[in-house]
Amino acid sequence: MKQFTSIYDVSNLEQLVREARALKANPVQYEWLGKGKTLVLLFLNPSFRTRLSTQKAAQNLGMNCIVLDMAQGWQLEFEDGAVMNTDKAEHIKEAAAVLSQYADIIGIRTFPSLIDKEKDYADFVLHQLVKYATVPIISLESAIRHPLQSLADVMTIEEYKTVKRPKVVLSWAPHVRALPQAVPNSFLEFMQAAPVDFVITHPEGYELAPEFVKHTPVEYNQQKAFEGADFIYAKNWSSYTQYGSILRQDEAWMITNEKMAWTNHAKLMHCLPVRRNVVVADEVLDSPNAIVVEQANNRTFAAQAVLKQILERVM
Amino acid sequence: MKQFTSIYDVSNLEQLVREARALKANPVQYEWLGKGKTLVLLFLNPSFRTRLSTQKAAQNLGMNCIVLDMAQGWQLEFEDGAVMNTDKAEHIKEAAAVLSQYADIIGIRTFPSLIDKEKDYADFVLHQLVKYATVPIISLESAIRHPLQSLADVMTIEEYKTVKRPKVVLSWAPHVRALPQAVPNSFLEFMQAAPVDFVITHPEGYELAPEFVKHTPVEYNQQKAFEGADFIYAKNWSSYTQYGSILRQDEAWMITNEKMAWTNHAKLMHCLPVRRNVVVADEVLDSPNAIVVEQANNRTFAAQAVLKQILERVM
Amino acid sequence: MKQFTSIYDVSNLEQLVREARALKANPVQYEWLGKGKTLVLLFLNPSFRTRLSTQKAAQNLGMNCIVLDMAQGWQLEFEDGAVMNTDKAEHIKEAAAVLSQYADIIGIRTFPSLIDKEKDYADFVLHQLVKYATVPIISLESAIRHPLQSLADVMTIEEYKTVKRPKVVLSWAPHVRALPQAVPNSFLEFMQAAPVDFVITHPEGYELAPEFVKHTPVEYNQQKAFEGADFIYAKNWSSYTQYGSILRQDEAWMITNEKMAWTNHAKLMHCLPVRRNVVVADEVLDSPNAIVVEQANNRTFAAQAVLKQILERVM
Repeated sequence: MKQFTSIYDVSNLEQLVREARALKANPVQYEWLGKGKTLVLLFLNPSFRTRLSTQKAAQNLGMNCIVLDMAQGWQLEFEDGAVMNTDKAEHIKEAAAVLSQYADIIGIRTFPSLIDKEKDYADFVLHQLVKYATVPIISLESAIRHPLQSLADVMTIEEYKTVKRPKVVLSWAPHVRALPQAVPNSFLEFMQAAPVDFVITHPEGYELAPEFVKHTPVEYNQQKAFEGADFIYAKNWSSYTQYGSILRQDEAWMITNEKMAWTNHAKLMHCLPVRRNVVVADEVLDSPNAIVVEQANNRTFAAQAVLKQILERVM
Repeated sequence: MKQFTSIYDVSNLEQLVREARALKANPVQYEWLGKGKTLVLLFLNPSFRTRLSTQKAAQNLGMNCIVLDMAQGWQLEFEDGAVMNTDKAEHIKEAAAVLSQYADIIGIRTFPSLIDKEKDYADFVLHQLVKYATVPIISLESAIRHPLQSLADVMTIEEYKTVKRPKVVLSWAPHVRALPQAVPNSFLEFMQAAPVDFVITHPEGYELAPEFVKHTPVEYNQQKAFEGADFIYAKNWSSYTQYGSILRQDEAWMITNEKMAWTNHAKLMHCLPVRRNVVVADEVLDSPNAIVVEQANNRTFAAQAVLKQILERVM
Repeated sequence: MKQFTSIYDVSNLEQLVREARALKANPVQYEWLGKGKTLVLLFLNPSFRTRLSTQKAAQNLGMNCIVLDMAQGWQLEFEDGAVMNTDKAEHIKEAAAVLSQYADIIGIRTFPSLIDKEKDYADFVLHQLVKYATVPIISLESAIRHPLQSLADVMTIEEYKTVKRPKVVLSWAPHVRALPQAVPNSFLEFMQAAPVDFVITHPEGYELAPEFVKHTPVEYNQQKAFEGADFIYAKNWSSYTQYGSILRQDEAWMITNEKMAWTNHAKLMHCLPVRRNVVVADEVLDSPNAIVVEQANNRTFAAQAVLKQILERVM
């Protein structure tokens, strides 16, 4: 693998998931692979699971891992040609080139503005890093995608599915803040490539970007969507059409036991953090059908499979 | 050892102190023990000695150690059943369960509110983590206890004592801020279990919680308490009875050479950080009787003994 | 090497540079040297290159490296005899002595006040740490020097020079903020000891401290200074004489292609971060004559040579 910024960097998803599951069965079997290699994780936005699971993945592979919280340092300038007389002290051109001296692989997390749709959907920050770095880049969530999350999601569905081709439903759910569309966008890309029947359900106004939705069926009736589902993937996102807006916050779309009863004993997935009793009710998260913790655990092995395939190419 | 949140987790204090001293004599003798194991340290409040000494202890045992400053990430919700529509993004239920996937042992530091006495003294935050984590927990200081500090304190007294059963005095001293009762509370628990004659001295109004004081004699006259003392343990704390209040800040209780002269050439201990010329005078801290630096050094080996006993049980 | 706070700690600069270059050729040849040793990096001010390159250097030598961002913890008191009733929780006396228990080598970064010239130029913070620590200290940039940067600079000039004794010009350039004089001061000290012809150029009012300038020629005419130059080292600094002031911000002194044309095909150096189109124009930084990225890369091996020589003395 050359880099990991979206599903388009994956040549064989099935094989990658198989690799992740094999690493889960024996996490330290490649602990020699990363010896003497350094992974630098650059956080322009906060992270909990992604940071910990990626550090753990690097450790399992014997890599050194250095974490940089950019919030504590200076701001980076991403615009080419900028006259740098503002509060931004360093240009991504130098930052990326210099990081490439110290790191063998760079991971970056960045969030969208939720204001400038065009720049967000050009994944500007990530692409400027890719452009100016000379080592492989791993997205730790970008403005519009969270591929490490989605890879762990596919792996989790593989682990828990009881039929060959399960029905997976991505359901919008309410939230108090305006959230990115990164997780649903990536989930769409990975589900479209996975052996599942896939449906999206959300209130009107929450349509995701057409280039991500493609031919995936959208069902505005949550109950109808849930019928026969084997997996419910709950997630809030802000509006794409009225970009970055919160159109509704009422409880009507919260995931409850009543709604889970519409399904085929579906498993409940969420990328976490989850707002209890806002996005998903306690009764669902505390039930044996919630697999969110194992889903988070799988983040380690998804990251490890990606790092492994990149390391194998670097060496 | 199953966990380390208070002296009640220690089955044999004498043996644990002996182990800590043996590790000090040869810090890397068990460097194979933690291989492939991960310690995650979760700081809800700042730390200097605890963080460094615990990282060092983990390194000495060959463990990986990941530090998380929660101040840089999101806030956690600790209340069961909460409707999470506030500024708290993740519930301790998920955070603890997920951390337990990435970590073999979790350490947590949290401070009291100094407002809600009941919740502080239920050690609510620590106990919610213990309740929802599935791996052993180490307290890096909780709302009401600092057992790693107290273990290092017992070890330090063992090192420096010149009589079989030394007289140890815990003396309140002034401070400019309202401080927790965690250090004195834990010190009480450990001194009551150690082979020492133990006395507390403080101004009226600074009585500690009865469930910690038990039958330990309290002497309101500082001079009388200091007479014949082999160890003076200086420490400020805010009022327990007028919960969280500062009742006095005058210099009358500061530790000075004049007061040390009342003792039996006592050693001066303090958990650090210490406000010079407020809590303890320069003349005392700069004298050979101050053993605060070696006491801080012993933090490493106290933490290492605890980690070692937990690792031995985990394996 | 006993410590590394300025060129005065270097007994043989030529040999140290040779060592740095040898480590660059084979970074892990001494990976056994730091085994079981701990480097603690204390950042009182933010850092990007210094932090990453020093961590990398430590890793190459097999050392453990712990980073402490003091901005997240409490403030330190550096004044001897202070009555500590302000916002500063811990005295450098205890902090330095305690750190010396946990660390085998301590690195510290601190910036000048740019207000109190006398205290800044006494390098007060650094010297208080040196005074109270019992292990070797490495400056990661102090109020008035940045010797790890300058060592990497000498190494970079050695790598890129095409004549035995190149002409090196330190040129002041504009900036939007008041910057320290640390980088130019150290560069002066190292250039005066290196086999180069060295000239400084800056507008009037930007004269550096006489104890650093010594007999180095100062040329107020930038064009005249650039003539025949093999290396242009661009750097902004605030006024030393009108201490900490910005006297001018116009573009007249910005480094452009037009100015580089005055030189002998000079290489462009800068310690980074560099404000593009303020300090140096895009056209220069994007040209093959800019060697700022390799200069940053050399930071790793400069730090590694210093750590190696200190470790060899410690062992």
